[in-house]
Amino acid sequence: MRGRMGVTIFILQSMASVLPASNTSMRSDRNTYVGKSFVHVKNPYLDSMDEDVLYHLDLGTKTHNLPEMFGDVKFVCVGGSPNRMKAFALFMHKELRLTDSEEDIKDICAGTDRYCMYKIGPVLSISHGMGIPSISIMLHELIKLLYHARCSDVIIIRIGTSGGIGIAPGSVVITDEAVDSFFKPRFEQVILDNIVTRSTELDKELAEEIFNCSKEISNFPTLIGHTMCTYDFYEGQGRLDGALCSFSREKGLDYLKRAYNAGIRNIEMESTVFAAMCRLCGLKDTTVSKDEFLVQEDQPLEGQPPRTQTKAPCI
Amino acid sequence: MRGRMGVTIFILQSMASVLPASNTSMRSDRNTYVGKSFVHVKNPYLDSMDEDVLYHLDLGTKTHNLPEMFGDVKFVCVGGSPNRMKAFALFMHKELRLTDSEEDIKDICAGTDRYCMYKIGPVLSISHGMGIPSISIMLHELIKLLYHARCSDVIIIRIGTSGGIGIAPGSVVITDEAVDSFFKPRFEQVILDNIVTRSTELDKELAEEIFNCSKEISNFPTLIGHTMCTYDFYEGQGRLDGALCSFSREKGLDYLKRAYNAGIRNIEMESTVFAAMCRLCGLKDTTVSKDEFLVQEDQPLEGQPPRTQTKAPCI
Repeated sequence: MRGRMGVTIFILQSMASVLPASNTSMRSDRNTYVGKSFVHVKNPYLDSMDEDVLYHLDLGTKTHNLPEMFGDVKFVCVGGSPNRMKAFALFMHKELRLTDSEEDIKDICAGTDRYCMYKIGPVLSISHGMGIPSISIMLHELIKLLYHARCSDVIIIRIGTSGGIGIAPGSVVITDEAVDSFFKPRFEQVILDNIVTRSTELDKELAEEIFNCSKEISNFPTLIGHTMCTYDFYEGQGRLDGALCSFSREKGLDYLKRAYNAGIRNIEMESTVFAAMCRLCGLKDTTVSKDEFLVQEDQPLEGQPPRTQTKAPCI
Repeated sequence: MRGRMGVTIFILQSMASVLPASNTSMRSDRNTYVGKSFVHVKNPYLDSMDEDVLYHLDLGTKTHNLPEMFGDVKFVCVGGSPNRMKAFALFMHKELRLTDSEEDIKDICAGTDRYCMYKIGPVLSISHGMGIPSISIMLHELIKLLYHARCSDVIIIRIGTSGGIGIAPGSVVITDEAVDSFFKPRFEQVILDNIVTRSTELDKELAEEIFNCSKEISNFPTLIGHTMCTYDFYEGQGRLDGALCSFSREKGLDYLKRAYNAGIRNIEMESTVFAAMCRLCGLKDTTVSKDEFLVQEDQPLEGQPPRTQTKAPCI
């Protein structure tokens, strides 16, 4: 809990540095995030469509006034679990001291059980489920939502937990680059039957800014590092406790050691497509994860089993 | 709704052919599904573990008596949406005419919001979210659950909706083989940094049995065909209405035509890993999908836009 709170505090502090007193629009006298960088799509067909229905969000351009509902959004926080993204929204509501009541915070996507979404002033809190395909559907529709709403200068942060490698348990990792299972900073998008490789670099300036906020909290280990994104939680992350396991304990440990040597400090399941899509569409992006289960820093990597018992990520 | 009902009726009829009057255990005088084929894991480490915690299901070998809770399970039905898998459980409860009250049907995984699970006599109804990674986590833990509970002769059916290709809207496709985006009957599992190719053949006998049940419902188009499984809902399935679209309308249509010529009749996002994992662990498996949005059979493929407007799958 302390970890999640810490992550939230970083984000709040980061927001505080760009939010005006009213919390409803961006400052115009600050260079860092100013310049009206609009969220955009890369789809020549979209503007000619009579209606755009965002099915998995239960929203649409004809049924909802998206600019009115979402035009002031400046921060989007996404995480896997619907319950936790609701908890994050309620916490954010308290911290931002908005005038509306807590009861007014309703799930905007209540008509579907695919995702949940809460809006707290200029902050959107959205769940994305688990894995690349699940977050990818949400991101397609979220980006279109922000585009239709004519949002600009939007910061998006994936908050969650992850498996740490060679770092203190409970550490927070701010991702500078998302890499795949082969330690490469790339996302391989299958388009029809072609594979297109996309960059997975995240916004280093934003990562640094959040990292600087972390320094104001004592005894809270935080670092910037690479995050590995896998398609599988068990066989893909070196776990020995799935229904299927075909590698030895030593082989699993060797893989994690090689990952550590490549600059990877944690593993999760969404960061590559998150980085690739957000970057292409003009959002400043990073991921902030608390590490819950690990190969620890205070024991030599050689002596540790590669997480023989699984623990689930929290967000 | 009629489509989902139809799928449910097929499954009910299929169950009726193997369920005894009491609905609590398997007949022993029937050849088709008898012979005590136990659900098994392929993990040499699992039996030596002191405790196995199925974190994403909120269950465990020390905290729950899994053989007592699940030992009589013979059918597992899985689908994406939690609400719909609850609705399926309630419908199944009514149809099986069990003596317990509807109020007794509680979400067994209520302690987590990752998945939901309902047990109705010998039938488990479980949600799996969207995409290969999400269903894969559930399947690892479900297979371990069935293994710990010493379940045998289990049939697993993925029920859902999907995008049809060249078939009548509302048709039900029973999958004989799941193929990937390149029309290959394979699932490429990344294990650490190795790619292992697994078979995605489904149980043809089970597909035939369900198909035969469908003949008893008039005016309900049903067919057996290949199902394509993609990692992406928009760019991967030829949709023109995502945030990103880099191919022409013609190119998308050509892809779907080639898929049709390869025997593919529908597209979804979970079948390859479902087929691969269930087959490896001794479950009889198929997927049954109602097609909601399509390239239709009654118009030539050449004349149709490849689903310019997205419609969400129902389960």
